[in-house]
Amino acid sequence: MITVALPKGALLKDSVARFAAAGLDFKAITDPNNRLLMVPSACGRARALLVRNGDVPVYVAYGQAQLGVVGYDVLREQQRTVAQLLDLGFGGCRMAVAVKASSPYRRAADLPAHCRVASKFTRCASDFFGALDLPVDLIHLTGSVELGPLTGISEAIVDLVATGRTLKDNGLIAIEDLFFSTARLIGNPLALRLDTGLLQNLVAAMEEQGVEHA
Amino acid sequence: MITVALPKGALLKDSVARFAAAGLDFKAITDPNNRLLMVPSACGRARALLVRNGDVPVYVAYGQAQLGVVGYDVLREQQRTVAQLLDLGFGGCRMAVAVKASSPYRRAADLPAHCRVASKFTRCASDFFGALDLPVDLIHLTGSVELGPLTGISEAIVDLVATGRTLKDNGLIAIEDLFFSTARLIGNPLALRLDTGLLQNLVAAMEEQGVEHA
Repeated sequence: MITVALPKGALLKDSVARFAAAGLDFKAITDPNNRLLMVPSACGRARALLVRNGDVPVYVAYGQAQLGVVGYDVLREQQRTVAQLLDLGFGGCRMAVAVKASSPYRRAADLPAHCRVASKFTRCASDFFGALDLPVDLIHLTGSVELGPLTGISEAIVDLVATGRTLKDNGLIAIEDLFFSTARLIGNPLALRLDTGLLQNLVAAMEEQGVEHA
Repeated sequence: MITVALPKGALLKDSVARFAAAGLDFKAITDPNNRLLMVPSACGRARALLVRNGDVPVYVAYGQAQLGVVGYDVLREQQRTVAQLLDLGFGGCRMAVAVKASSPYRRAADLPAHCRVASKFTRCASDFFGALDLPVDLIHLTGSVELGPLTGISEAIVDLVATGRTLKDNGLIAIEDLFFSTARLIGNPLALRLDTGLLQNLVAAMEEQGVEHA
């Protein structure tokens, strides 16, 4: 039996649609009345675990799920030992540095050394500012990072930007991109090595939907 | 101007009520139509930041908020330099070890050495099992920790238990408590030292509502 870890939230609907097109129907999971976190596929040959975005690589790395769908941003932040199989193309957003629109900073390198940067993605931020050779004081927040510059707890933030509406509503502007993120299909390396064709066929069927290798 | 960090979610309503009884009216924050994360008090002398539970100690530790309300569980997990001022009494729940009801484990010490324990509170769990001298492999999850034993990723979990309903719904039982948690009023140590009476009076007014010192 194949177990697939699917992310709650913005990526769920498209994830379910992509598995459905490849023959695994987890549509019961998107039913508003569904309260189950473990849902069998309509055919009974597979099951889906409904978990938080950040927990998808954990379940796949430990092998409790052979496959999973998760944003590239999470993969970059967590650096787990999972295989990236496909770029699924949806859920596109940028990881960007943003500052107050009224600030004088227009590039990340304009930020003063030892300034504070708030982020949910402190590893991504640390790598980025490390490569710039700009020492910054990183503050890990778990939500509403846009409050950082407004309250004065940080000069800048590193956060995901999709439409840019949240930034605009809070008087912030994105000044530099770290990378572009989309949803990825990931797999457990050992499960892929021991696979007798089941996983390979499923990945191939998902790939045929016109998607490139990650 | 006093800035107060209030936690989104289960503790918000009681937090707002306690500040209101002490003379600071942040009721606008509980309006279902409110989308602001920074809300002035009705009197204009203070403002509230609406942030995630786990971010309250961050804003208070950095001094962007002089006061905050947060669960004792978060304080135990984060170990930030904030002053615990009052035990507000509400939001009571236990931090507990739970296992499958069908498992043979009835005390934490029954768990096999090097078993896996999933938790959002890995520092609390690490301290607890360290004191028991039982080495365990901790797995950090960000949500739906009750899935741990069901999927087989862990033998046990360490999680907050309020009514016990979530455990029961998932065939789990709590076998040992780590500690009891309630909402706490916390303060920025420097702000309290420099206080000319404003904070002290507010804390005293909240204490008079019949609450003990933490």
